Amino acid sequence: MIVALAGGVGAARMLAGLLAVLDPSEVTAVVNTGDDTVLHGLCISPDLDTVTYTLAGAINPETGWGRVGETWLAMDELRTLSGGRLSWFNLGDRDLGTHLYRTARLAEGATLSEVTAEIVARWGLALRVLPVTDDPVATKVTLAPPDGSGEPGAEIGFQEYFVGRRHSVAVAAVRFEGIEAARPAPGVLEAIAGAEKIIICPSNPIVSIGPLLATPGVAEAVARRRETVVAVSPIIAGKALKGPADRLLVELGYEASVVGVARLWAPVAATLVIDTADADLAGAVEAAGMRAVVAPSVMHDPAAAAALARAVLAA
Amino acid sequence: MIVALAGGVGAARMLAGLLAVLDPSEVTAVVNTGDDTVLHGLCISPDLDTVTYTLAGAINPETGWGRVGETWLAMDELRTLSGGRLSWFNLGDRDLGTHLYRTARLAEGATLSEVTAEIVARWGLALRVLPVTDDPVATKVTLAPPDGSGEPGAEIGFQEYFVGRRHSVAVAAVRFEGIEAARPAPGVLEAIAGAEKIIICPSNPIVSIGPLLATPGVAEAVARRRETVVAVSPIIAGKALKGPADRLLVELGYEASVVGVARLWAPVAATLVIDTADADLAGAVEAAGMRAVVAPSVMHDPAAAAALARAVLAA
Repeated sequence: MIVALAGGVGAARMLAGLLAVLDPSEVTAVVNTGDDTVLHGLCISPDLDTVTYTLAGAINPETGWGRVGETWLAMDELRTLSGGRLSWFNLGDRDLGTHLYRTARLAEGATLSEVTAEIVARWGLALRVLPVTDDPVATKVTLAPPDGSGEPGAEIGFQEYFVGRRHSVAVAAVRFEGIEAARPAPGVLEAIAGAEKIIICPSNPIVSIGPLLATPGVAEAVARRRETVVAVSPIIAGKALKGPADRLLVELGYEASVVGVARLWAPVAATLVIDTADADLAGAVEAAGMRAVVAPSVMHDPAAAAALARAVLAA
Repeated sequence: MIVALAGGVGAARMLAGLLAVLDPSEVTAVVNTGDDTVLHGLCISPDLDTVTYTLAGAINPETGWGRVGETWLAMDELRTLSGGRLSWFNLGDRDLGTHLYRTARLAEGATLSEVTAEIVARWGLALRVLPVTDDPVATKVTLAPPDGSGEPGAEIGFQEYFVGRRHSVAVAAVRFEGIEAARPAPGVLEAIAGAEKIIICPSNPIVSIGPLLATPGVAEAVARRRETVVAVSPIIAGKALKGPADRLLVELGYEASVVGVARLWAPVAATLVIDTADADLAGAVEAAGMRAVVAPSVMHDPAAAAALARAVLAA
C-alpha cells in the first residue's frame, strides 16, 4: 500500500502518475481539508474535488481546477444579482452538483469521509481518498501589516486570500482554526502505519501539507515511518510552479528553495525528490537532513507524471 | 395603491395582468413563504421566485416555474452522484444563481424582505414584492392514514408533498410550523391598511393563501378592509387549473367549488370573482356571504390576464 499526502493541483497530477504505474486499489490519498469552506450555504472541499476530478479525467486542463466542459449560468446570475460582489469564487454549474451533493449528505449526518468515498466511487475510481479529518478545520491567513504601521494585519479566510485576493498580498501568519480538536479521519493513521511507502506530494508546504501534518497524531505517525517517506519538492529553482508556495515560505521565514523545503520536512521524511534544475543543491538538502534524489519533476503531461511516480517509488 | 395576496403560478399571472393595466409602482404583492425550504444548504423561496421570474418575463412558460432557457448540469450531477435520490426537487442552473444569492445574503444577516427587494430591483421590476413574513414558516402536511389503519399518517414537508410526491397522496391535515411566532414583514400591515383595493389572487386557498392569512395580524388587517377586498376563485367548475387545491379542499372538509371558496374567504373578502363556467353558482356564493362577480378567469395569455385584472379592479 502506498499513501500519498495530498493538496490540490500538484498532488492530483502526482496521484495520476501513481495510478498510471500502480494498481489503483493499492493507493490511498490523504487530502488536505484546510481550504474547505462554506460559501453561499454550500460545503466546498477544493482539494478533494481537484484530486477526484483530475483522476476521473474530468478536470479543466487549462485551470487545473474545476470541470472540463463547464458552464457558468449560476455564477452569471449570482454576479448579476450581487453586482459582482458575491461571485469572486467561481462555481461552475457541473461543479455545483458536487457541492449540492456534499452539502446534502453532510446535512443528513454523513461524515466527509463517507461523502468523499461515495463521490470517488461514483466516478469509478479504485483508489481510496481520505480527507485528513472529518472535523472542521479552516486555514486562516493574517495579512502583513501595512508598511510603517504598528497595527497587526487583518485575518481572512484561506479562500479570500487565495481566490479573492489571488494570493498577491503579503502574509504575516497562517493558522488552522479547529486543528487542536480535529481527529484524523477513520483509516488515516492506520494507512500511514501500514504503508509500504508514504509520499508527500509536491503541494504547498504551508497551506496544503501544513494542515495534514498539524492534524493531531498525523505528523507523529508519519515521523515514525520516516525512512519510508519520500517527499517531492513543490519548489523548483526557487519557484512554485503554481500558487504562492514560494512567497509564503519567504514571508513566514523559510527559504524558497529545495533546502528550505528539506528543513521543513526533514523531521517527517527521509528522502526529498528535487528537480534536475536543483541538482547543485543536493548537498545542501543532505546537510539539511534529507537524502536528495534528483529527477525531472515538472509534470508537463501524463507521461512526465508517470515517470516522476516511478522515480518516487524507486527512491 | 393595490395590494395582491399571492401564491405561485396563478398569482404571478394575475400580477402580470395587474401590471399591464396599472402603474407598476402602485402595486404591492404580499407573497406566501410557507413553501420555502432549505435544500442542499440553499434557501429556496418558490413563490417569490415564480412571481419575480414571471413578471420579469424570465419564467419557463411550459412549466410555470423555473427559468426559460434553463440548463440542468448541476442537477444532472446531483442525480448521478445520488443515484437519483437527492434530485427530486429540480434546481436549474440559472435558478441556482438566485438561491446562491438569497442564501449568501441571508447568511450575511439580510432579511428575506431585503433580499427580495434586491432581486426584484435587479430584474428592473417597479412593483413592490414583500414576503408575508421574514420569519421562518414551514408548511407541513400530514398524510391520510393508510386505509383501515388507526395510525396517524406521516407528517412531511410541503415540498416533499408537492414535488416529491407530486401532490398525489391524500392529506389529513396541514399546519404552518413557526406561524405563531411569525411577524408580518415590514410594510405588510401598512400596505393592507392603506390599500385602495386588496386582491386575493387565484392561488391555493389552503397552502398558498392559508399561510398569508395565518400570519398573526394579517387576517385581521385584511378583514378590517373587507369591503375593498376582491378575491379571485382558484377553483373553476370544481377544479383547480393547476395543483392540488381541489383535492386539498375536499380532503380537509371543504367543498371544491366557488361556494367552498366563498365560505373560506367570506370573513376577509366582500367580493369573489368567479369564472363564467360557474355563473350558475353566483347565488350560492352570495348565500355564503360574498358578492359574486362573473368574469372569464382562465388566464390563457397576457391579454386574458389583463382582462381579468380589469374586471377585478372594476369589481
